[in-house]
Amino acid sequence: MSDKILIVGAGAIGGFYGGLLAKAGAEVSVVCRSDYETVKRRGFQIDSFKLGCWQFQPKQVLQHCADYQDTADYLILCSKVTAEVDRIGLIRAAVSKNTVIVFIQNGVEIEAELQEAFPDNELVSGLAFICCNRLAAGEISHLAYGKLYLGNFPSGVSAKTRHLQQLFTQSGIECIVSEDIIAGRWQKCVWNAPFNPLSVLSGGLPTLTILQQQENMVRRIMREVCDIAAGCGHPLTDDVIETNIQNTYVMPPYKTSMLLDFERGHAMETEAILGNPVRAAQRLGIACPSLETLYSLMKLRELQIQSQHQ
Amino acid sequence: MSDKILIVGAGAIGGFYGGLLAKAGAEVSVVCRSDYETVKRRGFQIDSFKLGCWQFQPKQVLQHCADYQDTADYLILCSKVTAEVDRIGLIRAAVSKNTVIVFIQNGVEIEAELQEAFPDNELVSGLAFICCNRLAAGEISHLAYGKLYLGNFPSGVSAKTRHLQQLFTQSGIECIVSEDIIAGRWQKCVWNAPFNPLSVLSGGLPTLTILQQQENMVRRIMREVCDIAAGCGHPLTDDVIETNIQNTYVMPPYKTSMLLDFERGHAMETEAILGNPVRAAQRLGIACPSLETLYSLMKLRELQIQSQHQ
Repeated sequence: MSDKILIVGAGAIGGFYGGLLAKAGAEVSVVCRSDYETVKRRGFQIDSFKLGCWQFQPKQVLQHCADYQDTADYLILCSKVTAEVDRIGLIRAAVSKNTVIVFIQNGVEIEAELQEAFPDNELVSGLAFICCNRLAAGEISHLAYGKLYLGNFPSGVSAKTRHLQQLFTQSGIECIVSEDIIAGRWQKCVWNAPFNPLSVLSGGLPTLTILQQQENMVRRIMREVCDIAAGCGHPLTDDVIETNIQNTYVMPPYKTSMLLDFERGHAMETEAILGNPVRAAQRLGIACPSLETLYSLMKLRELQIQSQHQ
Repeated sequence: MSDKILIVGAGAIGGFYGGLLAKAGAEVSVVCRSDYETVKRRGFQIDSFKLGCWQFQPKQVLQHCADYQDTADYLILCSKVTAEVDRIGLIRAAVSKNTVIVFIQNGVEIEAELQEAFPDNELVSGLAFICCNRLAAGEISHLAYGKLYLGNFPSGVSAKTRHLQQLFTQSGIECIVSEDIIAGRWQKCVWNAPFNPLSVLSGGLPTLTILQQQENMVRRIMREVCDIAAGCGHPLTDDVIETNIQNTYVMPPYKTSMLLDFERGHAMETEAILGNPVRAAQRLGIACPSLETLYSLMKLRELQIQSQHQ
């Protein structure tokens, strides 16, 4: 019997990974809001640089989890992590006793509310290293990368997680399981914490320019994230900063997710990417002056955006 | 015989203080570029909240110092301090053996090039605490404050400086001489270093909002400036941060000079206000992580502005 999977927040990331699971034979349904009408009518058109083009017609296309006419084996949450998104309210109606809750989302220390709301469900933390855009309603372009990391929260890798890994691997995308996925979150934050806010606060510079002009600052910020990760019990490998720097030099100039959100007038993941690391540092008494300054500046920038919309 | 004074860079600040000196009986000429035609024809109209309205017709209105048909007792430089402005080239042709060079300008550690270029002239450092705008060509509005600090560089107060003080005082504006004017520059930087870049990087928030939202960050930045000032041999009084914070709470919400420059597409005084303190700190081995981050961000922001104009 095929796995029943419900993707919640089926934008570019959710639609893409959902489409992969459907290719692998799972029975995939989606909850999507803004593109509901189009996706209901003709599903997703996915164009991947690596896996070709395919059409993904979800089993059920829903506006709300409460409309799901089935019991999900896996519920995969792909929404953004911002104050505007009530992640618990979004998924609660579709979480059954045996549903594994998977969240493919950015940021660190974003698990507590899920764990508190669903203490008896298996929680799987997912990290997508992907460049993937929504071109129009139901149209997804997969431009680069695609690797997915999965691991149980707070640690370990369950049989159900390994099964999900197999589905992704069958579909043609690299999927790696991690015994310490929280370290993976911190590792992703090493890149996100400098480049996301700097791209916004600089007025829209691409990552390569930021790095070429201000490599020292980028390194300082990365160092602070590493210090906090270690303080939280998830020390990263010694080469993580060097690797991130070198990778960014060879990446094509890239617009960060925060910059894309900013340019589109969407809420930014400031708390998940900056606020949570800063609060962790303050809790642990770890100095992170550069992160604190970036966080304060992003809060001011967000306030200024809000004041313009009033 | 009345004092011969040449104001170079007669925008709002230069026009206002020049107008005061003319009221006090000095023979004041001006060098101005953008508003030359208008000022030549009908001088300056000055409207002061405190000193009423008056018309200031300079003795000579010039486009270049080389056109000055006299020998200046005082040359008062009021240009901005940016990479685009060659301060030495701007004034050289009007500096005679006995000319006192006064600079009413923002920033710290901006004296070296003047001292090197004119080693035998008396140098007077001036600090204006004023809110004063150019409304149109030749029209100046003096909105608030106006106090001027004067002191010789590198220290002391000469007879000629005291004489200039008397002229300003006669004209109705408060003018104070300082034996340690460099400390005064650092003290002004305590306010400028946080509020100028934060107003730009926040996307244009007024000073009061910045303070209400991010008082801790503002205090951290002020503390770093105090540390650098002390390291440079100019310790500030213990209450300087508290006084600046409290004054800013009671000031009307205010657009900083850097924000005004930014909005007008003019060059910003990033080096004078941020770059020089950061370099002083690095020279002395003093930590200033918040200033460094702000400075790096302003450099990125300037690069982004330049790239738009290409």
